[in-house]
Amino acid sequence: MDFLTCPSCGKAVKVWQNPAPTVDVVVYEEARGVLLIKRGRPPYGYALPGGFVEVGETVEEAAVREAFEETALRVELTGLLGVYSDPARDPRRHTMSAVFLARAENPEDLRAGDDAAGAAFIPLSELPEMAFDHAHILDDFKAVLEGRRRVADIQKA
Amino acid sequence: MDFLTCPSCGKAVKVWQNPAPTVDVVVYEEARGVLLIKRGRPPYGYALPGGFVEVGETVEEAAVREAFEETALRVELTGLLGVYSDPARDPRRHTMSAVFLARAENPEDLRAGDDAAGAAFIPLSELPEMAFDHAHILDDFKAVLEGRRRVADIQKA
Repeated sequence: MDFLTCPSCGKAVKVWQNPAPTVDVVVYEEARGVLLIKRGRPPYGYALPGGFVEVGETVEEAAVREAFEETALRVELTGLLGVYSDPARDPRRHTMSAVFLARAENPEDLRAGDDAAGAAFIPLSELPEMAFDHAHILDDFKAVLEGRRRVADIQKA
Repeated sequence: MDFLTCPSCGKAVKVWQNPAPTVDVVVYEEARGVLLIKRGRPPYGYALPGGFVEVGETVEEAAVREAFEETALRVELTGLLGVYSDPARDPRRHTMSAVFLARAENPEDLRAGDDAAGAAFIPLSELPEMAFDHAHILDDFKAVLEGRRRVADIQKA
């Protein structure tokens, strides 16, 4: 439970709080690497393209929309890597992310859009400082690529 | 965006709305069938054990907690079946469910708890009328069992 302040009278209004649903997308090609954006606002660092799911759209639609808004790439989702919901994964609030695997249909059109200060394909062996739990997500992704982990595995406490 | 009514002055208070994160659990044994609860409140019908994710808990913790509260069974999660987020999946509001696969550690202790009016293992060939999109989820689960579908596949529009 959380409280908002009424803008008219200043009193408290109860709001039921759940983790905020988000999506992130791992767009990967062996020759180019993984698609990352440089964040233009806090928390700074590099991140997978992604964002909040809106009411009325599916997580798949949100993933395609966010990837396009932030990188101008049209992505085709190929599956789920997993769901990441550690309460500490985002310093701003508790979020729960459905993380998709995808390929880009137009990688040559890459450009940073929306809140992104930059966007690039980066080799997995040269990852920069990552925001949120995205270094952990990419560790899981590398483990899947190398056959050490299944997709859709659970996160052990 | 949605609006709440201030309980003090009656004016509207803006609230950013995202789909509400939920979890559902497919507890299955070939000999017993799939674990279902009979819902004690609308929408009526049978359903997989599950419920809303709370702030501060992971989806895995929520799945184990909800299964226990509704059926008295301790479950061990074995993976994710998928994420279900069709805006029409719940008639009350837009929800986004992480659906886990699990096995029960104490199936003989089954009893309905919390909001459940009943709980039972039901053979997949004898499924009753299901609430929400749980018939669709169990169709996907049967397809996985029969090798016709991958776990963590995406939902096509």
